[in-house]
Amino acid sequence: MAQPQFARETSRSGEFVRQPNRFTGRVTPDSQSPPGGGPDEQGRWPLEAGRYRLIWCRACPWAHRTRIVRGLLGLDEAISIGTVDPIRDDRGWRFSLDPDGRDPVLGVEYLADVYRATDPDYAGRVTVPALVDTVSGQVVTNDYPQITLDLSTQWRDLHRPGAPDLYPEALRPEMDELMAQIHRDVNNGVYRCGFATSQAAYDEAYQRLFARLDALSARLADRRYLMGDAITEADIRLFTTLVRFDAVYHGHFKCNRTKLTEMPVLWAYARDLYQTPGFGDTVDFDQIKAHYYCTHPAINPTGIVPLGPDESGWVTPHGRG
Amino acid sequence: MAQPQFARETSRSGEFVRQPNRFTGRVTPDSQSPPGGGPDEQGRWPLEAGRYRLIWCRACPWAHRTRIVRGLLGLDEAISIGTVDPIRDDRGWRFSLDPDGRDPVLGVEYLADVYRATDPDYAGRVTVPALVDTVSGQVVTNDYPQITLDLSTQWRDLHRPGAPDLYPEALRPEMDELMAQIHRDVNNGVYRCGFATSQAAYDEAYQRLFARLDALSARLADRRYLMGDAITEADIRLFTTLVRFDAVYHGHFKCNRTKLTEMPVLWAYARDLYQTPGFGDTVDFDQIKAHYYCTHPAINPTGIVPLGPDESGWVTPHGRG
Repeated sequence: MAQPQFARETSRSGEFVRQPNRFTGRVTPDSQSPPGGGPDEQGRWPLEAGRYRLIWCRACPWAHRTRIVRGLLGLDEAISIGTVDPIRDDRGWRFSLDPDGRDPVLGVEYLADVYRATDPDYAGRVTVPALVDTVSGQVVTNDYPQITLDLSTQWRDLHRPGAPDLYPEALRPEMDELMAQIHRDVNNGVYRCGFATSQAAYDEAYQRLFARLDALSARLADRRYLMGDAITEADIRLFTTLVRFDAVYHGHFKCNRTKLTEMPVLWAYARDLYQTPGFGDTVDFDQIKAHYYCTHPAINPTGIVPLGPDESGWVTPHGRG
Repeated sequence: MAQPQFARETSRSGEFVRQPNRFTGRVTPDSQSPPGGGPDEQGRWPLEAGRYRLIWCRACPWAHRTRIVRGLLGLDEAISIGTVDPIRDDRGWRFSLDPDGRDPVLGVEYLADVYRATDPDYAGRVTVPALVDTVSGQVVTNDYPQITLDLSTQWRDLHRPGAPDLYPEALRPEMDELMAQIHRDVNNGVYRCGFATSQAAYDEAYQRLFARLDALSARLADRRYLMGDAITEADIRLFTTLVRFDAVYHGHFKCNRTKLTEMPVLWAYARDLYQTPGFGDTVDFDQIKAHYYCTHPAINPTGIVPLGPDESGWVTPHGRG
């Protein structure tokens, strides 16, 4: 399968440069639009239970965040979910896991159909997660970092009773800085290792990645979660990369100083989260491996999917209670 | 770099099938040729100190065996050594590590020059190790399994005093069977994983590899070496694969159920050997990684060499003394 985006998102010095997110609408309780309406003058969509549909892929770490946050906040009834196949074909993300190959709510075979219906001129990569308005069939947003923060802050009226505050106001300045570091060096850092086309670009990404993982290990040595005693958005963002680390990033993306299982603090921390309801039950190692190994011919031309690693360790005691 | 041998050594079902060794001459003390002569009617060359030159590459596990056996037996003076660059160019193994890019004894730039001088029609892969007769400039043998056994059995007159018996007569039936299993499932098994072009061929090689490693772990749980209390050829053959396992086979060849460092008995056994004079001092992880990652474009098109893994564990105590 040709992979033009690989070249388009590579700098002249061989660095991977991720494309910007195209759609940045937001669902808010203070939208000026009436129920059932479209975005108001400020691009805000009205908050309504049952109206929006979240499209994700089990393989994708960016989409995985939204699935976890939606679950922890009890938004499962308020926001329906559609799941694309981990393996794209030449038309991109497809609903081939659904019985008739179409999303049962949106009625489309490809996520690209929804993108095109929203912006006929869109020529970038079609990405998950995408929040789609089921009334108009338009993409509201594919802006993954904002989607999860909005689920925490804008969708509060629809949270389950006793839902956690994943983005506490008092912690935001520290969290925002921490999440920016995690994004640059870890979440996107593993891609910068794997998609580098020059040794220098790879080397730099690798050094930043493991320096950051060491710093995070030190931070987590004497606290259960990144921000203290309670799970926050920062933990979710780190988790979706860590849970893929040994399965794909270690080998496929050459992030191989050490496996996650060889970094004791991070490994225990990741297991602690994995064993928390809403985390491990959303992980599908087979789909994760199939996606990465089958859809990057520029780094795995044979398309052969490794049988390892042994993932049985994820359910062993973590000792961080 | 084109890699025609990759296709030529692949079966219709996607399995890697290693080419046979072309040159099978043997140096023996009972050759009928006079000193300085060529092979006798039975293809036997006369045993002479200082006459033959062993060409190896630090990266190559098959060549690495010969280097270790030569050292353990004290044949360093009797057999000189030439070292090719770990990275082949389009003419193959080259003497570019030597000051003027030529082997100082053979006077050639490429090992292929010696192969061609011996057999002008040879069209297969030029391989190391190769034992070369410095008098005639001919390849005596590139038959790696026989080379090391002959160093033990045919070169005995030139061994150092107190040299170990690496192929004890009484143990040969058991050793031969064990070495055949190790060859099929481990030494060549890692290549069958890495060079498979079908998922089924890979899966089968992977299962055989780890089943064999588990069996070897069990065997080594209550004995220091494979055949008991003394190092034999079987240990050397296993070692040269194990020492490359985490550096290249785990990621590059997708042998990723577990790292060597995650198989406690084998990891301690491998460290024990590594720390034995004649083993670790012949290992060059940088050349090993450079070779594999830069010369298999069919499985690593970018040619980027991973910075990991952390190899500092090799010198830690092994506890098997």
